[in-house]
Amino acid sequence: MSTSTLTIATTAEQVDRAARQAHAAFLSIADESPSTRAARLNTIADALRAHSQELVALAATDTNLAEVRLQGEVKRSAFQLDLFADEVRTGVALDATVDHADPDWGMGPRPDIRRVNVPLGVVGVFGASNFPFAFSVMGGDSASALAAGCAVLHKIHPGHRKLALRTGEIVVAALADAGAPAGLFSLVDGRPAAEALVDHPLIKAIGFTGSTTGGRALFDRANARPVPIPFYGELGSINPVFVLPTAWDSRAEEILTGYAGSFTMGMGQFCTKPGVLFVPDSASEEQLRDTLGTALDEAPLAKLLTPGLRKSFGKARDEVASFAGVRALVSGTDSEIPTPTVLLVDAESVASDPEVLHREMFGPATVVVRYRDVADLPALAAQMEGQLTATIHADEGDPSGELLSTLTGIAGRVLWNGWPTGVTVSYAQQHGGPYPATTAPGTTSVGTAAINRFMRPVAYQDVPDAALPPALQNVNPWEIARRVNGSMEPAGGTP
Amino acid sequence: MSTSTLTIATTAEQVDRAARQAHAAFLSIADESPSTRAARLNTIADALRAHSQELVALAATDTNLAEVRLQGEVKRSAFQLDLFADEVRTGVALDATVDHADPDWGMGPRPDIRRVNVPLGVVGVFGASNFPFAFSVMGGDSASALAAGCAVLHKIHPGHRKLALRTGEIVVAALADAGAPAGLFSLVDGRPAAEALVDHPLIKAIGFTGSTTGGRALFDRANARPVPIPFYGELGSINPVFVLPTAWDSRAEEILTGYAGSFTMGMGQFCTKPGVLFVPDSASEEQLRDTLGTALDEAPLAKLLTPGLRKSFGKARDEVASFAGVRALVSGTDSEIPTPTVLLVDAESVASDPEVLHREMFGPATVVVRYRDVADLPALAAQMEGQLTATIHADEGDPSGELLSTLTGIAGRVLWNGWPTGVTVSYAQQHGGPYPATTAPGTTSVGTAAINRFMRPVAYQDVPDAALPPALQNVNPWEIARRVNGSMEPAGGTP
Repeated sequence: MSTSTLTIATTAEQVDRAARQAHAAFLSIADESPSTRAARLNTIADALRAHSQELVALAATDTNLAEVRLQGEVKRSAFQLDLFADEVRTGVALDATVDHADPDWGMGPRPDIRRVNVPLGVVGVFGASNFPFAFSVMGGDSASALAAGCAVLHKIHPGHRKLALRTGEIVVAALADAGAPAGLFSLVDGRPAAEALVDHPLIKAIGFTGSTTGGRALFDRANARPVPIPFYGELGSINPVFVLPTAWDSRAEEILTGYAGSFTMGMGQFCTKPGVLFVPDSASEEQLRDTLGTALDEAPLAKLLTPGLRKSFGKARDEVASFAGVRALVSGTDSEIPTPTVLLVDAESVASDPEVLHREMFGPATVVVRYRDVADLPALAAQMEGQLTATIHADEGDPSGELLSTLTGIAGRVLWNGWPTGVTVSYAQQHGGPYPATTAPGTTSVGTAAINRFMRPVAYQDVPDAALPPALQNVNPWEIARRVNGSMEPAGGTP
Repeated sequence: MSTSTLTIATTAEQVDRAARQAHAAFLSIADESPSTRAARLNTIADALRAHSQELVALAATDTNLAEVRLQGEVKRSAFQLDLFADEVRTGVALDATVDHADPDWGMGPRPDIRRVNVPLGVVGVFGASNFPFAFSVMGGDSASALAAGCAVLHKIHPGHRKLALRTGEIVVAALADAGAPAGLFSLVDGRPAAEALVDHPLIKAIGFTGSTTGGRALFDRANARPVPIPFYGELGSINPVFVLPTAWDSRAEEILTGYAGSFTMGMGQFCTKPGVLFVPDSASEEQLRDTLGTALDEAPLAKLLTPGLRKSFGKARDEVASFAGVRALVSGTDSEIPTPTVLLVDAESVASDPEVLHREMFGPATVVVRYRDVADLPALAAQMEGQLTATIHADEGDPSGELLSTLTGIAGRVLWNGWPTGVTVSYAQQHGGPYPATTAPGTTSVGTAAINRFMRPVAYQDVPDAALPPALQNVNPWEIARRVNGSMEPAGGTP
């Protein structure tokens, strides 16, 4: 019988105990079917929905976030679990691949080889400050790891501890209801425990969303272990937006209004917040100031997530404001509820000192860059570091081809005539990008492909059918899609 | 016009120049079709085959390897290029995924999102000592990177420099014949250039096969960069073999003979060399010594690959021989052509000091471990580090279930009644495993899936059809298999 007691490890010894229990739990579910695993995810989703009122109320006291936003996050988190449950049932993440023995294989006789993805083991997940549900206790990383078949030790974010503890209780109770083994999911709290988590030999990967500084320190720590482990960190991103001349001429006001809404969403504390807007230099200071000013009057303001974030935001904003050629277009206040800041700079200044393109301001501040020649945009874009997103606003006739190629080279997601805030959970989603956007540019932390981060392939050579994992057996008992001798076979097929 | 001059960078400045040229070449092929890319691989394969006599002769003077082995390596390398060419044509590695806009998506309206894998850029590949063709200039890593659409700077192994230079010339000439841009492939030679390669900002990933010490140093270096890059390193592996009692009773001689052949193959310098054999303690010392001795008389002996390897092999062998409880069953000579060594130890000694299970001896030496109780094998296996392979020899009635689960947890490939040396190139192959077998346990360096290491996903949101990469356009011009709204659509389909 599993119990529904939530464990919270705050010391290295407690982390060790939790990791051992989690490992035992992980081993005990190794042979479960996709439907058992999927049902567990559905049960957690149902529990989140059933407790959403209570959780949203707790989150509202822990953070400064509006209830409607928090409700959206709960809905998203539950939806994500259900979508991942469906994905587990399809078996897509298993990437089952069967090569029959072939005496005539071109390089010499081929044995029977069959490969399937298996879960890594116990995974450590760090909660993010800015999404108390969607990237916290039962957010994308935890959901991905459970969908992969891993056990999870979740390091709670101190910015919403009460919510984290209550969410943990609800998750653990749901897991018990679903018949999951005790210890499959538990919490870790505080810095000593967090460091012990990254160091523990039974931890096989880390999921992290946070600052570049904090994330890099943990990335270095994970790599310095005697046995290094994958560190899936989402660190920082500027999310540039490029407005091409024809688009600007035809709808400057609409674009500026959309931009104001996007960069102030969540008080500028979204990882996909657009931090730089490139506009043609036909844009006058007056036009920019008036249109943005009007739009910003509508922005819902609130306190920043934590006092520490407020301090570091103010510092970053003031530093960027002090760069050569940068001047304030809209000067925000430095009050407890800061009002938005818009800085202005010319492309020439940026080209000579691109630092303004590299400095993330995690709060309601942004930079508008005026360019003289649209042909300069690819070179400006190439000065930027790795990005989660990059956006083009263009109309017919705008020369976007080279810019689109350049953005493909630096970003994980490229948008057209839209805004990067708002990241849907779907099959094709990619939330990741070259460093520092993420530490693992080949992976995503949002969407069904996020599950793959917590699995690794194992091949079986000439293993008797009955001893093979079900996903690889001849009769294909789970009726999943597989690749057989190089050809894709749809779900339900048997080779 | 591209030229066919081979560049060899030996200084940091030359590496910088080569990296810039490679990056320009990479950018210039970004929009090519799968068939163009595939044809390039085929052209290289043809060139290797056309020059195989000359190359094998060179390799035979550079190394101590037999011609038949070297011919096999050339055949394998050319086959691999052709297989990867076919794989490029299928588009499987692109993982094209299309989600149409959906106003009724469960978490709120979904935009149109389409994801495809794009090549990383310029890749650094380190040649291995032990496979002058298959894991060197145009071995698995170079072939994977070119198949992904990357440019390659290949660091030649000093153990076969003449061969590397000539192979590089042939590859560069073939690339020119195929119309590839100059600089897409070039060589790097010597340690200063190798370090500059790992540090260079335009290098986006490293492929490496070699020792745990050397590999770990480069892994650390790649992670310490201001912008860390993926380091795909294959370091060390013991490749344990477990013989269960019934199998032992029915065919001990056959097993020992196969084992002797496998651990001396290539003078024990295969990364999948079986370094530890577990047998029941019904095996007498006399039986082991006589059977192995007879089989080892047949082993083709040769000098080790380099004097340095001979020295480090002798040191590792002598250290393992000195561990508590270890005694020599067959004592090899320490001559220029060393004869094989077989060490013997009881499972009790190993359980109390598992170091004997962790020490790779890269040469013709191995350890036989006698166990009292077959039920102890999973616990013994769990003491081992990450492995490229693990093997079970079992007959009906042997209790293999728990052992198989344990080996799945530590190895990338699990074999049944076979030998791990010999790694076929196919769709399901997995050559990788938990550290130290590889530094990236989710990846393989052999088989078509090796291509994925050198790509990363990019999603396009609401991008007009004509501006999308062809792989994602509505008409599916390349007729590749894609996932559309969660459903797999076979090659040739249009959504």
